[in-house]
Amino acid sequence: MEKNRLEAFSDGVLAIIITIMVLELKVPHGEELSALLPLWPVSLSYVLSFAYVGIYWNNHHHMMQASRRVSGSVLWSNLHLLFWLSLLPFTTGWMGENHFARWPTMLYGLNLMLCALAWYILQTRLVRLHGPDSLLARAIGPDKKGKSSPLFYLAGVIAACLDHAYVGLAFFVGAALLWLIPDRRMERVLMEQEAGERRP
Amino acid sequence: MEKNRLEAFSDGVLAIIITIMVLELKVPHGEELSALLPLWPVSLSYVLSFAYVGIYWNNHHHMMQASRRVSGSVLWSNLHLLFWLSLLPFTTGWMGENHFARWPTMLYGLNLMLCALAWYILQTRLVRLHGPDSLLARAIGPDKKGKSSPLFYLAGVIAACLDHAYVGLAFFVGAALLWLIPDRRMERVLMEQEAGERRP
Amino acid sequence: MEKNRLEAFSDGVLAIIITIMVLELKVPHGEELSALLPLWPVSLSYVLSFAYVGIYWNNHHHMMQASRRVSGSVLWSNLHLLFWLSLLPFTTGWMGENHFARWPTMLYGLNLMLCALAWYILQTRLVRLHGPDSLLARAIGPDKKGKSSPLFYLAGVIAACLDHAYVGLAFFVGAALLWLIPDRRMERVLMEQEAGERRP
Amino acid sequence: MEKNRLEAFSDGVLAIIITIMVLELKVPHGEELSALLPLWPVSLSYVLSFAYVGIYWNNHHHMMQASRRVSGSVLWSNLHLLFWLSLLPFTTGWMGENHFARWPTMLYGLNLMLCALAWYILQTRLVRLHGPDSLLARAIGPDKKGKSSPLFYLAGVIAACLDHAYVGLAFFVGAALLWLIPDRRMERVLMEQEAGERRP
Repeated sequence: MEKNRLEAFSDGVLAIIITIMVLELKVPHGEELSALLPLWPVSLSYVLSFAYVGIYWNNHHHMMQASRRVSGSVLWSNLHLLFWLSLLPFTTGWMGENHFARWPTMLYGLNLMLCALAWYILQTRLVRLHGPDSLLARAIGPDKKGKSSPLFYLAGVIAACLDHAYVGLAFFVGAALLWLIPDRRMERVLMEQEAGERRP
Repeated sequence: MEKNRLEAFSDGVLAIIITIMVLELKVPHGEELSALLPLWPVSLSYVLSFAYVGIYWNNHHHMMQASRRVSGSVLWSNLHLLFWLSLLPFTTGWMGENHFARWPTMLYGLNLMLCALAWYILQTRLVRLHGPDSLLARAIGPDKKGKSSPLFYLAGVIAACLDHAYVGLAFFVGAALLWLIPDRRMERVLMEQEAGERRP
Repeated sequence: MEKNRLEAFSDGVLAIIITIMVLELKVPHGEELSALLPLWPVSLSYVLSFAYVGIYWNNHHHMMQASRRVSGSVLWSNLHLLFWLSLLPFTTGWMGENHFARWPTMLYGLNLMLCALAWYILQTRLVRLHGPDSLLARAIGPDKKGKSSPLFYLAGVIAACLDHAYVGLAFFVGAALLWLIPDRRMERVLMEQEAGERRP
Repeated sequence: MEKNRLEAFSDGVLAIIITIMVLELKVPHGEELSALLPLWPVSLSYVLSFAYVGIYWNNHHHMMQASRRVSGSVLWSNLHLLFWLSLLPFTTGWMGENHFARWPTMLYGLNLMLCALAWYILQTRLVRLHGPDSLLARAIGPDKKGKSSPLFYLAGVIAACLDHAYVGLAFFVGAALLWLIPDRRMERVLMEQEAGERRP
């Protein structure tokens, strides 16, 4: 089965999610600089969620590049992932408009956890389809980031529950930074493979 | 005629429909968990419509994969299908905001029926273009799901009309589940074909 | 220069325009069927504009298929066309919410005229780039529809100006129907070309 | 690494940004021509930002065409550019709704400067990846426009700060016109390259 259309549809949905979040940044009514001030929590949530959707797009790009084909169950796992990601504009907006209050911050962390779970399911289905010796399985490797980030989300949810929402937020920012640190592993595996294919 | 652009345009429209529905989930004003409670009917409708758009995208993907070319009448049948699908965010919103009241639930069911009818027209045009012995015709086969789901929608509309909107809703959920049950038929036909093409 | 990205970007913009128009269909507050009644002018405008964007996408698809390459001036002419098309949700909404009043209907007609003009400019640039004997020039032919539809829009604008907005609307519907009537000309030229390329 | 998906995702985000800006053009309530009059500042801002997003898309198209591959840091530089561009609908709306007041106009100019900076970073990463003798490096050349436009934005921000917002606006319009003037350089380099590849 062709993977192109799965990529195209996912790109479309991710592009829309990342862009409609900015609609939550309502144009303020005053014309003074001070009119922008109350927007800082919404803006901060926007930056964080923009980074997360960017990370998911980036990882999706790499994972699909290492994949050769997709199956019906991969299509559904992908839609499942897109579903939880599509709720991010809502949970981001609720957290931002309530200045990182307890429940909204917990719900945001829960949303991140569900996205991570859906990602894990998608990854597992793809690896099962390609086999344990495939390029994909090697490119993923021990998957330290994928395994540790849910712990960050969990820690953040617990911190928010104990009414330390800013500590919780720090965990969510930390998990994002973890992903932003370049990890040459997958790029190297993909490059070796490419070089191997070119060799006669 | 090239089928790529028809796929790209359909992917774009479906990706937008599936994502703008979440805009109906208005960010609540309170910061308590109880502020989320009144959102359950809108959320439930969103999940259901997300599943339906996902099903249509999935089926569209498979049908176009089995197709070799498109004609002017296929382009228009496809736009016709996209038209009814584009009304889903509206009917979903009306049903959700009115807690599955009689008329909104009936209209939602009617919308599903019109989508199914438009799908049937598109499928018929494509089969006529490719011939009864084509890969497409064989992949579609007796089309049991396609023929039975309008009956579910009709039953749902009648139930809603008799003021049993939740029974109606159950029928709509049932039809969606019917499509979610994996049906290996089309995948198998496509794989056999692929294998056949590789054989010398 | 590659034409793929021009197609992809145009597909994206057209897909978004066609879908955000439905956001003008605000979910009504009542749950009775009568709550839908006041929506008929907005719904009618939506159907008309959906048809127009569909027509433009269809024609764009055919014109780009007959084209071999694009230039910088083609890119800008294409953006110019997308600009006027992107105003359609606005003019559609104004016309629908004011029940086809005089000025909104005139503005809608003016918008259609500007789209047609932008289309003509784009077509002329593409023909100049490909030469008068090109497949593109032959596929366009005498371009009767392209030349007559601005007259329909003009007649509609004049009718609306004389306070016969429904007559004006009839002209806009008429021009859309003109395009919906299948015109086998371009398809035939493209097919002959394809057949010619396959011939040894 | 494949550049196609980076192009597809960027096309999607740019297409959405360019189209959702029109949502700021709220449908007026009156049906008289005079009801449109208060919309002129929002409309003017919309036209300007439409031109800017169009310019970025156009330049992105050309730069990626001259590129052979992308790296992880290019993916992130591209997302960084898309982030600042995604804020344009917000800053455009604030400037338009406040009739080009001091602070909103300054913020709009600042947004343009940050987009230009992000563009410069992306370009630098791509040139570093391809080497100083690459087609890309030659196509960019001395990059006079890229180097002078930030000066226009800076001048515009300073003018707005001194309460001459319309002078500032003129600088922003000027920088856009600078880019709209066709610059055959990159097209010529790309064409020569193409011709060279065809030569035996």
